[in-house]
Amino acid sequence: MASAAASSSSQKVKVGVLGATGTVGQRFILQLADHPNFELAALGASSSSAGKTYAKAVEGRWKQIKRIPANVADMPVYECQAQHFAQCHIVFSGLDSGPAGPVEDAFRKAELRVFSNAKNYRTDPLCPLVVPLVNPEHMEILPFQKQQVGTKTGFIVTNANCSTTGIVVPLKALEQSFGPLDKVLVNTMQAISGAGYPGVSSLDILDNVVPFISGEEEKIEWETAKILGGIKSDKTAFDYHEQDALKVSAHCNRVPVIDGHLECVSVSFKKRPAPSVEEVERCFAQFTTEAQRLAVHSAPAQAITLHEEKDRPQPKLDRDWQNGAGVNVGRVRQCPVFDIKFVVLSNNVMIGAATSSVMNAEIALKKGYLD
Amino acid sequence: MASAAASSSSQKVKVGVLGATGTVGQRFILQLADHPNFELAALGASSSSAGKTYAKAVEGRWKQIKRIPANVADMPVYECQAQHFAQCHIVFSGLDSGPAGPVEDAFRKAELRVFSNAKNYRTDPLCPLVVPLVNPEHMEILPFQKQQVGTKTGFIVTNANCSTTGIVVPLKALEQSFGPLDKVLVNTMQAISGAGYPGVSSLDILDNVVPFISGEEEKIEWETAKILGGIKSDKTAFDYHEQDALKVSAHCNRVPVIDGHLECVSVSFKKRPAPSVEEVERCFAQFTTEAQRLAVHSAPAQAITLHEEKDRPQPKLDRDWQNGAGVNVGRVRQCPVFDIKFVVLSNNVMIGAATSSVMNAEIALKKGYLD
Amino acid sequence: MASAAASSSSQKVKVGVLGATGTVGQRFILQLADHPNFELAALGASSSSAGKTYAKAVEGRWKQIKRIPANVADMPVYECQAQHFAQCHIVFSGLDSGPAGPVEDAFRKAELRVFSNAKNYRTDPLCPLVVPLVNPEHMEILPFQKQQVGTKTGFIVTNANCSTTGIVVPLKALEQSFGPLDKVLVNTMQAISGAGYPGVSSLDILDNVVPFISGEEEKIEWETAKILGGIKSDKTAFDYHEQDALKVSAHCNRVPVIDGHLECVSVSFKKRPAPSVEEVERCFAQFTTEAQRLAVHSAPAQAITLHEEKDRPQPKLDRDWQNGAGVNVGRVRQCPVFDIKFVVLSNNVMIGAATSSVMNAEIALKKGYLD
Amino acid sequence: MASAAASSSSQKVKVGVLGATGTVGQRFILQLADHPNFELAALGASSSSAGKTYAKAVEGRWKQIKRIPANVADMPVYECQAQHFAQCHIVFSGLDSGPAGPVEDAFRKAELRVFSNAKNYRTDPLCPLVVPLVNPEHMEILPFQKQQVGTKTGFIVTNANCSTTGIVVPLKALEQSFGPLDKVLVNTMQAISGAGYPGVSSLDILDNVVPFISGEEEKIEWETAKILGGIKSDKTAFDYHEQDALKVSAHCNRVPVIDGHLECVSVSFKKRPAPSVEEVERCFAQFTTEAQRLAVHSAPAQAITLHEEKDRPQPKLDRDWQNGAGVNVGRVRQCPVFDIKFVVLSNNVMIGAATSSVMNAEIALKKGYLD
Repeated sequence: MASAAASSSSQKVKVGVLGATGTVGQRFILQLADHPNFELAALGASSSSAGKTYAKAVEGRWKQIKRIPANVADMPVYECQAQHFAQCHIVFSGLDSGPAGPVEDAFRKAELRVFSNAKNYRTDPLCPLVVPLVNPEHMEILPFQKQQVGTKTGFIVTNANCSTTGIVVPLKALEQSFGPLDKVLVNTMQAISGAGYPGVSSLDILDNVVPFISGEEEKIEWETAKILGGIKSDKTAFDYHEQDALKVSAHCNRVPVIDGHLECVSVSFKKRPAPSVEEVERCFAQFTTEAQRLAVHSAPAQAITLHEEKDRPQPKLDRDWQNGAGVNVGRVRQCPVFDIKFVVLSNNVMIGAATSSVMNAEIALKKGYLD
Repeated sequence: MASAAASSSSQKVKVGVLGATGTVGQRFILQLADHPNFELAALGASSSSAGKTYAKAVEGRWKQIKRIPANVADMPVYECQAQHFAQCHIVFSGLDSGPAGPVEDAFRKAELRVFSNAKNYRTDPLCPLVVPLVNPEHMEILPFQKQQVGTKTGFIVTNANCSTTGIVVPLKALEQSFGPLDKVLVNTMQAISGAGYPGVSSLDILDNVVPFISGEEEKIEWETAKILGGIKSDKTAFDYHEQDALKVSAHCNRVPVIDGHLECVSVSFKKRPAPSVEEVERCFAQFTTEAQRLAVHSAPAQAITLHEEKDRPQPKLDRDWQNGAGVNVGRVRQCPVFDIKFVVLSNNVMIGAATSSVMNAEIALKKGYLD
Repeated sequence: MASAAASSSSQKVKVGVLGATGTVGQRFILQLADHPNFELAALGASSSSAGKTYAKAVEGRWKQIKRIPANVADMPVYECQAQHFAQCHIVFSGLDSGPAGPVEDAFRKAELRVFSNAKNYRTDPLCPLVVPLVNPEHMEILPFQKQQVGTKTGFIVTNANCSTTGIVVPLKALEQSFGPLDKVLVNTMQAISGAGYPGVSSLDILDNVVPFISGEEEKIEWETAKILGGIKSDKTAFDYHEQDALKVSAHCNRVPVIDGHLECVSVSFKKRPAPSVEEVERCFAQFTTEAQRLAVHSAPAQAITLHEEKDRPQPKLDRDWQNGAGVNVGRVRQCPVFDIKFVVLSNNVMIGAATSSVMNAEIALKKGYLD
Repeated sequence: MASAAASSSSQKVKVGVLGATGTVGQRFILQLADHPNFELAALGASSSSAGKTYAKAVEGRWKQIKRIPANVADMPVYECQAQHFAQCHIVFSGLDSGPAGPVEDAFRKAELRVFSNAKNYRTDPLCPLVVPLVNPEHMEILPFQKQQVGTKTGFIVTNANCSTTGIVVPLKALEQSFGPLDKVLVNTMQAISGAGYPGVSSLDILDNVVPFISGEEEKIEWETAKILGGIKSDKTAFDYHEQDALKVSAHCNRVPVIDGHLECVSVSFKKRPAPSVEEVERCFAQFTTEAQRLAVHSAPAQAITLHEEKDRPQPKLDRDWQNGAGVNVGRVRQCPVFDIKFVVLSNNVMIGAATSSVMNAEIALKKGYLD
């Protein structure tokens, strides 16, 4: 479908949102309602919402500070079937993992480019798992994916789990500056919004911390390897092997914070002597990515904001910095056991979810991956 | 003062509380008001409280669920000068670190046994730093301490920082079963009550996590070494050397939890092959300490409670188990980077503070260290 | 069934719990596991729990600080059918309002005395709506209820909504001392546990207040009239008429508090001049009820605890006073618009739910209503 | 000083902020750093801050989501003495009530127009107490104030307490449409930010509600009368008499909400029959004030936003609507005791504090009160 790229110069690319009424879907709506490159053209949700206007479908469930955009409120909601999205070139998927598998595949087969926040295709060897501030070049596998699944334009790109997203950005910066990492230990303190709505019962989390999130530690441990690994030179596979030596261990906790995942990270490097605290701080502060170079719409001015105050970043104070599109790092210091330790904050509902999908699509558009 | 031990058989030992109106002091009051071995005989606080009854002195500041014990409400509050504590054999100190240094020394010189929750003498090479479920034998240095400072009966025993206390109990269990540890990485999520009253501003912690607690990481790192280290055979010094190889790294965070410090711990052992998850679980479940063997009043039935549910221990649900006198461990599992990882919960206002001091004194009484 | 009363002198009355795995059911278990008058003999829950042991049925859903009582953990759970409760004389119902209607009626028809926390029969003109500290004499309608429904021993007694319970206790005290009330305006700030588990989503209540609880304001407004009204002299009906003149208006809010409903109340009296603040305080402090006179097991020593501190009662500090079985009143003062205003705190999961049902049964047992 | 008005057409009016480092002061900074009419020219704070740059003076105390404006960070901070504000025409005061009395008077005497958020001069019969969406015409007393205190241009205008501000806006709308009110009962649930920083201890408010705020109920009760009362025709006094009949009663509570005061209000009218729910809703939705008519910079598009959802307004979701400059009303319904009841939400740190002061000054500028 040459039109997607062609149209981008003169007019906006028409896009749809799957799972539009859920918490991630609502964030997609807010990001796309007034986007310079994309035009929101179709909305999909479950059969109980289909046939209603968007405003009606989310009645009592719209939990955003911003109001429903006026140009979206009256849009009709359809079932998540490709026939209703015929005018779209791209769909963003905020579907739950239950329906996401078959639905996203059906949309791909219907020649739609799917940018998905669901976990289903993250492990697929043909599907790139892309954090836009880390590995957009993984999308170079898309021609091979299309060839293998027999589509002309349809593909699936996934973005990472919200807690993985936060740490791979600084880890990528370190790896780029100082070579391969040896070991990473991360302790997460994750916001309740990461569990969706209604998600975490207030009785479970008020005056409490829950030291367990189902499947989360495993996701961090293997997603990090896929994301930080390269793509083979023939663009047909990801090079997990490259990261074989990298050992990652995660402790995941749910805390009574609305938005913003805070993570304490200890890292050791292969390189001896290891870089100093000052070198690491400089590396973070200067880290620039393809998203900044391409100056795509959702890109933060700085991929990493380095905080100087000794008690920052903090979820409440820093999660909305740069509209939640970058990550925040602070407290870089020596680790008595590893080499370096630091704190990372990322906004799980922005760069940890919808913002990643949208920024991936923006990069794909600029790089010609949509052609 | 032979009378302290002698009296213990027939009658209660008279004790005082320093800093009686503060948050730790209030806990001392609750633990001592109806104690089988100790009789609360004198209360000390700042000059602004001196001269009032206890009830009057804590008016508007008594923040306990339990009421002020009836037999304490009308007791007079004195300034923290030894002359007002002449009838006491022991004083428990809940003083802030500001006044604690000179005041505790003055009481020691006045031949009182001081059991202190303050940090001032923890680093003193003559003062034992005792977690009652870990190293009560460190109190065997007391004769040498008395000799060195020139007292007959007066000494100072300190207990550990609340976040250290939680982890040294399971670490001691592991070391006892499997030999020396190699590396420990701990991430704490600490309750607001750890900062005293008024302590943490609600504006700093509601919907937030603060990834910094002044001085806390350093305390965990060195206190662990002193506590887990032995005492030299001539009972004149602690054997830090023994723990030279043990590397400890801590990330400390304040979370919006009222009571109960939750800590995620990763450990590696010197022993190869390292113990299995099942061996570690058995080690925790079976860990018994001097406090249980002596059956002192405040001792928990189990030093460590091993939780089987995959999402426990949790502060809200488990902090009051065994009256907060033991520690709770759960989620024992393989660590991809270290050998084993697990979660610890300890009640920072109980075993992490006043309960430790009182249990230390109970053990001292039974073991004859008060003679 | 004469045996219920007869047995009470010599042995415990066998009781069952319906909805035993829910949040109210769990509270019934804790109150009945070691009760001097009642013996827990049968447990009922939904078909998904039936056939399991109680411990297995509540796995992952037991959200109490106290552990599952050892003598209950292995009890079998049945479906809520009367045949499984043949040995019981009483059942306590913690059922949701969905199943409660037909199930409770079936148990009544099977000659079981039902003490229910569900709302279904509260409006029934034959069913007493009893707050044990207010109107236990309403149970004198039970012979007429049994006659009308054609049972020998089976009946249904309901207790009130948790937010109603808190205010009717002080209102009863006022009415008893000063004659009929004229107007009552109440503003509630209700705990999340009032909505059951999972109940309120953490995303709805953290850093928030929700000024709406479905059906709650209406319940307070009419339940108050039924409870404070008398019972006709022939014991066949409740005398709503008596309260015709009493106007009640409620504003209901959900707040981020775990347990304990706080309510601000303004009251005006028919009596002129209205009683003074001192008279009202004396009235509250001296209020004694049938529960105290009969000295039933769950009765609080004082029906109303009058707090003197200017900022009390508070949920966190006062909800567990007297094991949550009484109510707490404070800040009695002149109201510029009504006569008097004050603050009430009641523990919604104790006197506001299971404790009311159990205390009603205790009173019924002592008064011979079970014969 | 004719220049203030004159300059407004061609250039910005130079303004200062007193108490610039406190919580209210920080809000003034954010509102004034990029204001179309005002230019931030001087900052005042306590002597411990004087001599530092603003960024240095608030180090560790800047608790805003937004960063310190770049053009303010390097401004010097002075002591609050008029000599340092010679170039300013206006000062905004975020001073604590301790220093506010004499300092504001000194600035007035030095011919500065003082717009103050402090409570000290609210009761002064010469000082207008102005909520910009309610009674800006009270500023017509300023010529008389200047005459009485002997200044040419210097005066003091105060704005109301944050909890008063929320209710007087809808009460003014009602009074304007339906004539005098008879009785008002209000129950507040106030955010922690209302107490400043550090303000409320987290130990006092997490999992809790505190049913007492010192002096707050009295403030609501008398401020409402002054604000809703008229100004005498000769512009020399406020006409409290007009509101003699209006009785206001307030219950004030502190809740664990960061920003946004929620208030439940019951109202009765003199007018019989009282207006219907629909008439009241229409009155709120159509309420327009001088701030809208003058279209001053900080004015919200709608003074009152009427919410249709049955569970709104809520602090978390609605406090930032219209940048917190208007008030939110919902749940208008019959009151069984009064005539009408409803819920109000106002942002205590915006329209409840700095936004009121700034909007008052904007109105004063447009109306020529600064001349």
